[in-house]
Amino acid sequence: MTDEATAFVPGHVTGLFSAHPHDDPAAAGSRGAGVTLTHGVRATVRRSSGASGDETTTLTLNDEPLSMPPVADVLSTLGVPDDVSVAVRTPLPVGAGFGVSGATALGVALAANAVFDRGRSENELVTAAHCAEVRAGTGLGDVVAQARGGVPIRLEPGAPGVGRMDGIPARPRVEYVTFGELSTAEVLSADTTTLTEAGERALSDLRNEPTIARFAALSRRFAREADLLTEDVESAVDAVRDAGGEASMAMLGDTVFAFGTGLTDAGYDPEVCRVHPGGASLADE
Amino acid sequence: MTDEATAFVPGHVTGLFSAHPHDDPAAAGSRGAGVTLTHGVRATVRRSSGASGDETTTLTLNDEPLSMPPVADVLSTLGVPDDVSVAVRTPLPVGAGFGVSGATALGVALAANAVFDRGRSENELVTAAHCAEVRAGTGLGDVVAQARGGVPIRLEPGAPGVGRMDGIPARPRVEYVTFGELSTAEVLSADTTTLTEAGERALSDLRNEPTIARFAALSRRFAREADLLTEDVESAVDAVRDAGGEASMAMLGDTVFAFGTGLTDAGYDPEVCRVHPGGASLADE
Repeated sequence: MTDEATAFVPGHVTGLFSAHPHDDPAAAGSRGAGVTLTHGVRATVRRSSGASGDETTTLTLNDEPLSMPPVADVLSTLGVPDDVSVAVRTPLPVGAGFGVSGATALGVALAANAVFDRGRSENELVTAAHCAEVRAGTGLGDVVAQARGGVPIRLEPGAPGVGRMDGIPARPRVEYVTFGELSTAEVLSADTTTLTEAGERALSDLRNEPTIARFAALSRRFAREADLLTEDVESAVDAVRDAGGEASMAMLGDTVFAFGTGLTDAGYDPEVCRVHPGGASLADE
Repeated sequence: MTDEATAFVPGHVTGLFSAHPHDDPAAAGSRGAGVTLTHGVRATVRRSSGASGDETTTLTLNDEPLSMPPVADVLSTLGVPDDVSVAVRTPLPVGAGFGVSGATALGVALAANAVFDRGRSENELVTAAHCAEVRAGTGLGDVVAQARGGVPIRLEPGAPGVGRMDGIPARPRVEYVTFGELSTAEVLSADTTTLTEAGERALSDLRNEPTIARFAALSRRFAREADLLTEDVESAVDAVRDAGGEASMAMLGDTVFAFGTGLTDAGYDPEVCRVHPGGASLADE
């Protein structure tokens, strides 16, 4: 047993998706495709000293106190005591389509399992985080994508053992610019019929040609058909296309992402990272 | 289209397994558990110049010419032309239980797909490499484990979409010493009834307690029950246990592996690496 453990979970930008609600959170989820990023979340779980008699779980994100309902859900699923401190560090913006909530839930699951010797398998930990996200309404597909890494295709929705995954074999450089926040919960709680039809069509086309260029093109078509584009994102995507690059919108955030040097070439000053080769993992012991 | 691409595939040491042959190579495979390593294979595929009129695929391992039947099988499955050069670099010994053959097949699949724009998905590439290994009789479970990374548990045998995986959430330091070669093909072509019964029991027990310490203990029990231990491996495992560490035998090689500083503490001079956090992946583009 250790007093502290840290997990790294890659960020995840969804490019196209369809929503598949279900009464069983392990069976709920999304189909679709996205990109996991070397920019991600480092979540450190510490056993509190207990000296102060303070038995409340505390959570900080880049040293600022924060509330994230899925985290308490994960700790409860794992049967972890209440006196835990969780410190999350990330270069990613919150609420902008990078799956920070899912990454935090999954990172806490991995780290808490190690600190408190819960003896869960990776599938069990991913399931705990996936179900917590679904119950909180904060995401449907980020956790299983972040557990896998690379450029994940979600063939069938749901947690490990229910859903099915594939991937696009590519590791390009990724650039992104965020203009503001969008509420995932708001979009997911509205009528998603049109969105899901557009997402299913895009996924079917992507499976016929699983390449990065096709992914970007189908993501743009999906964003238009599902009426998700913001003004800033649309301008940026057009500018990257005009400069000969590939870009689209991060679902769901007021964020544009591009491959290679797309945003730089279009005159933006983007954040730069890469596709992450692997999935969520404990940091070196 | 590029003229050259490189993929990294982690080494894989199996600790316990059961063999599940099948007429369909995608459905054939093994159940069991193992450890993927940061020591692995870098496979570079180059389009040959064609200037010499030489249309034979060449393969080198650490600059030495080598024949590996699964590699030609993979290239044929992908419909890649014959004038390809494959250069493999690895610190791992061949024929010693590290899955170098499977890693090479999978690395070639990923890199050749990129060089020749074959447009296959990751599941398709893993399936091509898995089936090539099964047909060559050189392995049953390395490829799917190497595609996943971490400490993979093979719940159900077979390629992606047929088999099912889980994992032990841990990333310990790994030490290993190799005493010589063992023939995987020889063991797999013999009667595997006893081995498979021992492997099934060990896997069932591991699923009840998916931790590194339990994995090492069950791997030792499996090696004894399946009568696989060599004299050198048995001595080394005993020495590590006497020094308070965890060690077992790499299946199938005359190789001992240990976690933490087990072999060092027992007076050996081991190679040192870690559990690899992710699976096979193209190198940075």
